[in-house]
Amino acid sequence: MTDLAATAAGAPAGAEPFDTVDVIRTKRDKQHLSPGQIDWVIDAYTRGLVAEEQMAALNMAIFLNGMSRAEIERWTTAMINSGERLDYSGLGMPTADKHSTGGVGDKITLPLAPLVASFGVAVPQLSGRGLGHTGGTLDKLEAIPGWRAHLTNEEVFAQLQGVGAVICAAGPGLAPADKKLYALRDVTSTVESIPLIASSIMSKKIAEGTGALVLDVKVGSGAFMKDLAMAGELARTVVDLGTDAGVKTVALLTDMDAPLGLTAGNALEVRESVEVLAGGGPKDVIELTVALAVEMLAAAGRPVDPDRVLAALQDGQAMDTWRAMISAQGGDPDAPLPVAKHREQVLAPRDGVLARLDAYGVGVAAWRLGAGRARKEDPVQFAAGIEMHAKPGDQVVGGQPLLTLHTDTPERFDRAYEALEGAWALAEDGQKVVRRPVVLDRLH
Amino acid sequence: MTDLAATAAGAPAGAEPFDTVDVIRTKRDKQHLSPGQIDWVIDAYTRGLVAEEQMAALNMAIFLNGMSRAEIERWTTAMINSGERLDYSGLGMPTADKHSTGGVGDKITLPLAPLVASFGVAVPQLSGRGLGHTGGTLDKLEAIPGWRAHLTNEEVFAQLQGVGAVICAAGPGLAPADKKLYALRDVTSTVESIPLIASSIMSKKIAEGTGALVLDVKVGSGAFMKDLAMAGELARTVVDLGTDAGVKTVALLTDMDAPLGLTAGNALEVRESVEVLAGGGPKDVIELTVALAVEMLAAAGRPVDPDRVLAALQDGQAMDTWRAMISAQGGDPDAPLPVAKHREQVLAPRDGVLARLDAYGVGVAAWRLGAGRARKEDPVQFAAGIEMHAKPGDQVVGGQPLLTLHTDTPERFDRAYEALEGAWALAEDGQKVVRRPVVLDRLH
Repeated sequence: MTDLAATAAGAPAGAEPFDTVDVIRTKRDKQHLSPGQIDWVIDAYTRGLVAEEQMAALNMAIFLNGMSRAEIERWTTAMINSGERLDYSGLGMPTADKHSTGGVGDKITLPLAPLVASFGVAVPQLSGRGLGHTGGTLDKLEAIPGWRAHLTNEEVFAQLQGVGAVICAAGPGLAPADKKLYALRDVTSTVESIPLIASSIMSKKIAEGTGALVLDVKVGSGAFMKDLAMAGELARTVVDLGTDAGVKTVALLTDMDAPLGLTAGNALEVRESVEVLAGGGPKDVIELTVALAVEMLAAAGRPVDPDRVLAALQDGQAMDTWRAMISAQGGDPDAPLPVAKHREQVLAPRDGVLARLDAYGVGVAAWRLGAGRARKEDPVQFAAGIEMHAKPGDQVVGGQPLLTLHTDTPERFDRAYEALEGAWALAEDGQKVVRRPVVLDRLH
Repeated sequence: MTDLAATAAGAPAGAEPFDTVDVIRTKRDKQHLSPGQIDWVIDAYTRGLVAEEQMAALNMAIFLNGMSRAEIERWTTAMINSGERLDYSGLGMPTADKHSTGGVGDKITLPLAPLVASFGVAVPQLSGRGLGHTGGTLDKLEAIPGWRAHLTNEEVFAQLQGVGAVICAAGPGLAPADKKLYALRDVTSTVESIPLIASSIMSKKIAEGTGALVLDVKVGSGAFMKDLAMAGELARTVVDLGTDAGVKTVALLTDMDAPLGLTAGNALEVRESVEVLAGGGPKDVIELTVALAVEMLAAAGRPVDPDRVLAALQDGQAMDTWRAMISAQGGDPDAPLPVAKHREQVLAPRDGVLARLDAYGVGVAAWRLGAGRARKEDPVQFAAGIEMHAKPGDQVVGGQPLLTLHTDTPERFDRAYEALEGAWALAEDGQKVVRRPVVLDRLH
């Protein structure tokens, strides 16, 4: 008997041009996967011929041994080819999309999509749901009574033509290989790999048919990318992939040490987004929304001055498109949003300056209050989340609320408080509080 | 939406003390698995709670990032604890076992087990089947009409008491975690990992209850371990594991550049083994059988002089035990062995000295003729295989047969010839042919 006999000298079984074990071994041994191997393994995985455990092993090998630029491009193309490709060339207007790598309080898509569309650039924003401590755009919009996330390709096309913006779930026909692979990576600790993240993002975005793409790569405690170097590498990889595929692609690296805006939670974030569309709202949300809109419009070939973009938030131009977009998907833009049954507050222990408000801690606390889900099947509480009453650098008064915690299930408060322990701090005497700028870097 | 949200800040779900994704991440990030993590993940995998794709990812992370000696020991112990442990303390005699890492023509277990048993040391040899180009001991013995591989634990005990030697399949209760894991590694290119090989071997051997173990680590083209350094590392790891578990363990590193003996194939190897037990047979098979028997007897605390061991092959002492062992398992030691329906020969093109006969090429050719299986479910041809008429260093005469190919299915000849292309060579003028010794090194 032998423990080593499985190193069989076999030719591939049956009529298949490759053997899965050979493909895994290639990457395991730090060699480059050939274009043929990549095309075959993605196709065979989609067909169910490559088993989940085999793809898991290959993914871990990719995670640990990396992929070259050529491999990433081929891998992305193979995932695109696993499904349908949408085509908006018949729309008669340019298209632009935005993708965020995920952060806490990141509701930017909500004001951004109608804002850009209000300048005549169509925004086909295919979005997802939250998992873990970062929220999902669809979960947020579903807090609006009547709004529906699932549209047919024909409905998407019609809404783009009529309204200019659509935010909806990606259809099942778009990059099905990526859908399988994403679910697999989630349970096998192979999420945080630049080649796998970049190919996953871009397979969907290229298949979706957008002409321009702006990537918002979050950097900081509340983002996956903790440091600028890794974020820059992801941004570079994605920009190259987009450019090679004929999509005008730009990336902004943006701060995620503190949450974006003053809310984290589904209905709470919709409310804040509507404030921004009404000309108000927190400064950082406005700044990032305008910066991304300027990039999207320029990338789509319709450059608009930042002041003019900001004005569209203040004069109701973007709000009109928002209302049309929500209504077109069955939502009532005037309906009251869900309100949590229970609220508790964290108070400032003394006068001082808020020195730190950690995005990760706030994200986990909001998630534990019910705003997020631990498993894909879980429901979310629309009203749950966290309201912030100060951001780092703000002066606070002893006894004032720093945070308001919202939930429908008060037994969740305890674990949320645990997550918030050490997540905020007032400045010590003489400590200078420096906030990073919203936009840290730009790649194109 | 986010591609990164799966890095959830979650506590483990339900009542489980660990989360699989965290365990995988630990090894992926080059950290040590804790004893608790190892115990849990092996137990949960056996229970089906850790999915195959999760264990595949963890295995690839172990393959690429390694395990410490403490981790390997704990991993082995956890696999032992996944099943039953046999106990031969009631036998009234010492026990010794041998494990080979697999090679071409490696029929040593067949003469070795009865030889050692004939000196009063019981040999509970739990063996396996071949997969790929190396053969399996059970496949070989099944070429003997009537012989059966599957015995109950009680039958094994009774046969050890009555005959002294048993070669049979490991029961389903022995290290079931290893059985699942081995099948998984086979399809996910995670076989050739020293921590995984060592723990797989030793979990079975320790659970099997042997008091002493001699490991035959094959080195060369026909073995998994191509170089002495890696083979030495495996031997060291296994010897340490055995010693820590209270099993007297010794390892020999032995040559596998050329096949062992003059046959590769099931019935062909049984015939050669019987020749050795009858005092004849090829020199290298005799030498290795005696060397391993001397080690097993010494490790079991019953040292015997090598000359005396050799004599037991020549005077019928070992043959008597062989006949009793085969008969006890339903086999007829006198029955004619299966003979192939078709034979073809490779002839020496000229007079000369055989310079090279590559174990890997011969192994693949024998496998393709039908001696081995590509998948676990495949049957083997008992009569198929290759007979060698010369070994490296031997003088040959132009036109004499170098190899005889045996098969029941003549359409297989072509692919066998392909495997033999370049697998042998006559010495060029003035070329000196140096054969490595059979035993290259010894570790204890």
